[in-house]
Amino acid sequence: MLGECFIYLCAMPLKNDLILKAANGEKVPRTPVWLMRQAGRILPEYRAVREKLGSFKELVETPELAAEVTIQPVDILNVDAAIIFSDILVIPEAMGLRYQMIEKKGPYFPKIVGNAGDLSGINTIEGEELSYVYRAIEITKSELNGRVPLIGFAGAPWTIFAYMTEGSGSKTFSKARRFLYQQPDTAHKLLEMLTESIIRYLKLQIKAGADMVQIFDSWAGILTPHHYRQFSLKYLDRIASSISEVPLTIFAKGAWFALEDIGKLDCNTIGLDWNVDPKDATRILPGKTLQGNLDPCVLYADNEDIIRETNKMLDGFKGQAHIANLGHGVYPDTDPEKVRIFIETVKEYSISNQIAK
Amino acid sequence: MLGECFIYLCAMPLKNDLILKAANGEKVPRTPVWLMRQAGRILPEYRAVREKLGSFKELVETPELAAEVTIQPVDILNVDAAIIFSDILVIPEAMGLRYQMIEKKGPYFPKIVGNAGDLSGINTIEGEELSYVYRAIEITKSELNGRVPLIGFAGAPWTIFAYMTEGSGSKTFSKARRFLYQQPDTAHKLLEMLTESIIRYLKLQIKAGADMVQIFDSWAGILTPHHYRQFSLKYLDRIASSISEVPLTIFAKGAWFALEDIGKLDCNTIGLDWNVDPKDATRILPGKTLQGNLDPCVLYADNEDIIRETNKMLDGFKGQAHIANLGHGVYPDTDPEKVRIFIETVKEYSISNQIAK
Repeated sequence: MLGECFIYLCAMPLKNDLILKAANGEKVPRTPVWLMRQAGRILPEYRAVREKLGSFKELVETPELAAEVTIQPVDILNVDAAIIFSDILVIPEAMGLRYQMIEKKGPYFPKIVGNAGDLSGINTIEGEELSYVYRAIEITKSELNGRVPLIGFAGAPWTIFAYMTEGSGSKTFSKARRFLYQQPDTAHKLLEMLTESIIRYLKLQIKAGADMVQIFDSWAGILTPHHYRQFSLKYLDRIASSISEVPLTIFAKGAWFALEDIGKLDCNTIGLDWNVDPKDATRILPGKTLQGNLDPCVLYADNEDIIRETNKMLDGFKGQAHIANLGHGVYPDTDPEKVRIFIETVKEYSISNQIAK
Repeated sequence: MLGECFIYLCAMPLKNDLILKAANGEKVPRTPVWLMRQAGRILPEYRAVREKLGSFKELVETPELAAEVTIQPVDILNVDAAIIFSDILVIPEAMGLRYQMIEKKGPYFPKIVGNAGDLSGINTIEGEELSYVYRAIEITKSELNGRVPLIGFAGAPWTIFAYMTEGSGSKTFSKARRFLYQQPDTAHKLLEMLTESIIRYLKLQIKAGADMVQIFDSWAGILTPHHYRQFSLKYLDRIASSISEVPLTIFAKGAWFALEDIGKLDCNTIGLDWNVDPKDATRILPGKTLQGNLDPCVLYADNEDIIRETNKMLDGFKGQAHIANLGHGVYPDTDPEKVRIFIETVKEYSISNQIAK
C-alpha cells in the first residue's frame, strides 16, 4: 500500500515547474532561482538537524532526515527547486573506497587509488547500493507534494576520480593530475567504471522521482584543455547521451576553456561560475539554458548592492533561457536574510523587466 | 671600493641575453627557458642551505644565502635566467603587517586588515626597508658574472591584498572578496598603498641590478571579470606605466577572462597558466611575448611524454615571441632530472625546428 501511495504522490502534478520549463527553453513568466548548497550550513534549521547526529555522513545516509533538510530551503527561502541532500562521494564509497568527512576540512580517503592494483577492490556499482538516496528522494517528493521540482545530482567522473586518487581536497590536485600523465590507461579504466556507475545512479534517482539532474564537475578547472577533452568531456558526453528522461544540467567549474565543447553535449542547461561574464556565455552558448552565476561573495554585501549586482546579472542573461543561481555553492557563513533578498530580487526584477525568455 | 666593484660587475655584459631579446620581441636563435620556483625545494642543494636556517624567512632575509640559492638552478639546471629568491609577502611585512611562513601550510598573518581602522598601522613603503632584497640582487649579479639575466619580482596589489585581508592561503579567498563588496573604498585605499609600494620596490630592484621584472597576480582567477578590472587591472596598469627601465612580465594566474585587457597593458611579456591553449593565447595576444605554459604535472611523466608535451607546447607558440616555462611554479616533489629534460628539450627542439621567432 505504501508503495502505491508513493507512486500516487510522485505523479502529483507540479504547481511550480518554472525551472523545468526554463531548462527546456520554454517561455516562463519570470526567471526561476535556486542555490547550490541551499540545503546546508547556512540555515539554522539545518544545523539543528545536523547536531542531532554524529556525522555528516549519517545525515546523508538517513533518508527521513536527508529529506527534511532538502525541503527546508523550499519552506524558508522560497526557492523554485529542491536539490536532494547528499554528497558526490557516495559513488566511490559504493564502489568500494570508503571516505570520511572531516569537520571543517572536507573529505578524506584513508586508502586511495594509486595504481592499477588498487582497482582490484573497486567495482562499477549496480545502483541499488545507494538505495538510501532513492528513498530520500521518494520521501522528499512525497512531502514536497508537487510544490517545486526536485533536482538529483552526481559528481562528474573526473571530479570523483580526482578525490579517489588525491585522497582529499587540494589546491592543485597534483597527485590526481600526475596519475593522468603517468598511468593514462588505468585512469581511463577507473573513469569508465565511474561513468557507468554515475549513469546507473542517475537513472535510479530519476526513477525514484528526481525531476531533473545535475552533474558537478567541480575540479574541471585544474586540467589542461587537452586533458579535459580526454579525461572529462569524453565521459560527460557519454552520460549526457544516456540521460534523456529528464533535463540534465552540467556544471564544470573553471572549465571556461571547454565551454564551447560543453555546449555541444546533449544536455539542456550549462552551469556557469562567476568568472564568466554572462555576455560571453550567451555568445558562446546561444542554444542552451544557462544557470548561474552571481559571485557568492555578493551575499556579504549591503542589500542595495545585492539587488544591484543581481539585477546586473539578470540583465546579462536577458534574451536567453536562464536559471538564476550563484556561481558556486553558497558560502556557509552567509546570512539567510541576504539569500532571501537575492531570491526575491530575481523574482521581482525578472517579472518587472520581462527578463525571462 | 666595494660599491665601485659592484658597479663594475653589474655592468658586465650578459653572455646569454636570450630572455631579454625574447621579451623585447627580437629575433633569437632558440627559445629561452626558466621555471617559476626553480630556486627552491626541488633542488637537494637548496634544501641543504635551507636546513642550516631556522626558517624560510631567515633565508629570504639573508642576502648571501638568498643569492646562493638563486644561482643554484643556473649551475644545476642550465636555465636561461635566474630569479631572485624572495617572497611576495615581504611587501606587506615592510608596510607593517608581519607574517609567518608555516612549514607545509604556507603564509599566516596573525593580524589581518579587516576594516579601515586596521590601516592605521600600515604605510606605503619608502623602498629602503627591503634593502636585504637589493643586497641579494647585487651579490647575485656579481656572482652570476653576466652568465644569464636576473629576474626581479613582486606580487600584484590584488594578490597581496588577498593575503592581507584573508590572513592565509584559501581555496575561495572569500574574506578577501567579501572585503571588496563590503568596503570598496578601504580596499582601494590599501590597493593604492600597495601599488605605490610595489613600484618603489621594483625600481630599487632594477637599480640593484635586476635585468627584468615580473608581477605575480597569483589569485587573479578568483575575481569576477568586473572586480578584476576594478581592483586589479587598474593597479597593474599603473605599475606597467611606471616601469620602463627593463622588460616587464605580468602573470595573472587564472585570469583568462582578462587576457585581452592584460594584453593592452604597457608590458612586454604575458605569463600564461596551463589552462590556456597556446593557440588561443597567440590569437588573443598577437603583439606580446608569451611566457609559459606547460602543466607542471607533465614533469611527473615518463621522459618521452615530457619531450612530446614540451614539443607540442613549443609548436603551439610557434611564430610568436616566446619564453618557455611551466604554467605555474614547479611542484616541490618534482625530480630535478625531469626538469633537466624539459629544459634540454626546449633548447634542442626550438633550434632544430626553428621554433623561436
